[in-house]
Amino acid sequence: MRKIEVVQNILDANNATAESNRVTLDSHKCAAINVMAAPGAGKTSFILRTLDLLRPGIRVGVIEGDVASTVDAEKVQNAADAIVQINTRYMPESCALVADMVDEALKKLPLAELDLIIIENVGNLICPSEFNLGEDRKIVIASTPEGDDKPLKYPMIFSDADAIIINKIDLVPYVDFDIAKFKSSVRDLNATVPFFEVSSKTGTGMAEWIQWLRQQLPGK
Amino acid sequence: MRKIEVVQNILDANNATAESNRVTLDSHKCAAINVMAAPGAGKTSFILRTLDLLRPGIRVGVIEGDVASTVDAEKVQNAADAIVQINTRYMPESCALVADMVDEALKKLPLAELDLIIIENVGNLICPSEFNLGEDRKIVIASTPEGDDKPLKYPMIFSDADAIIINKIDLVPYVDFDIAKFKSSVRDLNATVPFFEVSSKTGTGMAEWIQWLRQQLPGK
Repeated sequence: MRKIEVVQNILDANNATAESNRVTLDSHKCAAINVMAAPGAGKTSFILRTLDLLRPGIRVGVIEGDVASTVDAEKVQNAADAIVQINTRYMPESCALVADMVDEALKKLPLAELDLIIIENVGNLICPSEFNLGEDRKIVIASTPEGDDKPLKYPMIFSDADAIIINKIDLVPYVDFDIAKFKSSVRDLNATVPFFEVSSKTGTGMAEWIQWLRQQLPGK
Repeated sequence: MRKIEVVQNILDANNATAESNRVTLDSHKCAAINVMAAPGAGKTSFILRTLDLLRPGIRVGVIEGDVASTVDAEKVQNAADAIVQINTRYMPESCALVADMVDEALKKLPLAELDLIIIENVGNLICPSEFNLGEDRKIVIASTPEGDDKPLKYPMIFSDADAIIINKIDLVPYVDFDIAKFKSSVRDLNATVPFFEVSSKTGTGMAEWIQWLRQQLPGK
């Protein structure tokens, strides 16, 4: 019982900080999305395509979460209006971003000059679903080589998603991925979430995603 | 500090149970491997190929770890000599198997009649590296569509690996995966670990892996 109590205290404290992050973002009319996926699903490539299609009209800051390295931040730094890298390796939670880390990152970003924050979470389909960050929308990316059974095995992250990206759609001819089966499994968990079938590599399907994302932005 | 103390207590307790699991396995001359990978890297398909090549000469029990569902256990049940499914969703640790869960599973397996236990860990490149289970060897599977930068971003799991499987080698023509770069990044973390380039789909490269695995088995 001791450990469960500690975990509950951590989650309560996290929710309070997430709410405070939300207030900070709202006060700057800045939206935020939390992009979550398994390692190698293509989060960074998807964010790069998104930045290319939003900017310069929409000003975007990126928070990069990784256990270690600055590989992703280096890829994104010239494509975003501002960027902060978070490495979680030596933090009490290493398997996901938590609201405290985002609070620290927001302090380093010029929020008054930004319209949107894209948070790239740590590559993981489990832990990130436990920690609200203060984001407006939770985005989950599933990639076709992972297989169509992921919603059955990692239900929490799919249940809470506000949009689901099916990435690497260009690989469908070479892998076993039944799109209808995948969507049906998600529907059992989440009745209304929209799907966007994209290839970050070729750009296929990105226009529909960008149209949806623009509708979520409050505008300054 | 409170939280870090609790985490240390949990890891110490886990190591004690892992040691006890090891004694149990040794007393039955039963080896165990812990198979770790990101979601969708192909752990289950790789285990199915392995079972097909080892049995009936080697008798194998499988412990399937998943957050939710019995999808993998259903795929494996007719291919193994015995199987136990563990669902971690409502456990204090949901993002990895821990030694206690394996202890429970070992009690359900006919160890005297088995030569090898294959533990399929929860799909995750972070949490499983923190918990010893009492296994003889740690096996990490990386799949080519995930990209070659995973050792930089998830160094702990690659540092501790006793063998690294590069799976979905058949997809190399369609994805950006530089095998030499991947191996070089691993070498910076782990000077001696052997690599096996395989396709669980086509069977390519499985013979070398099986030869290595057989050399790790004590025999009854």
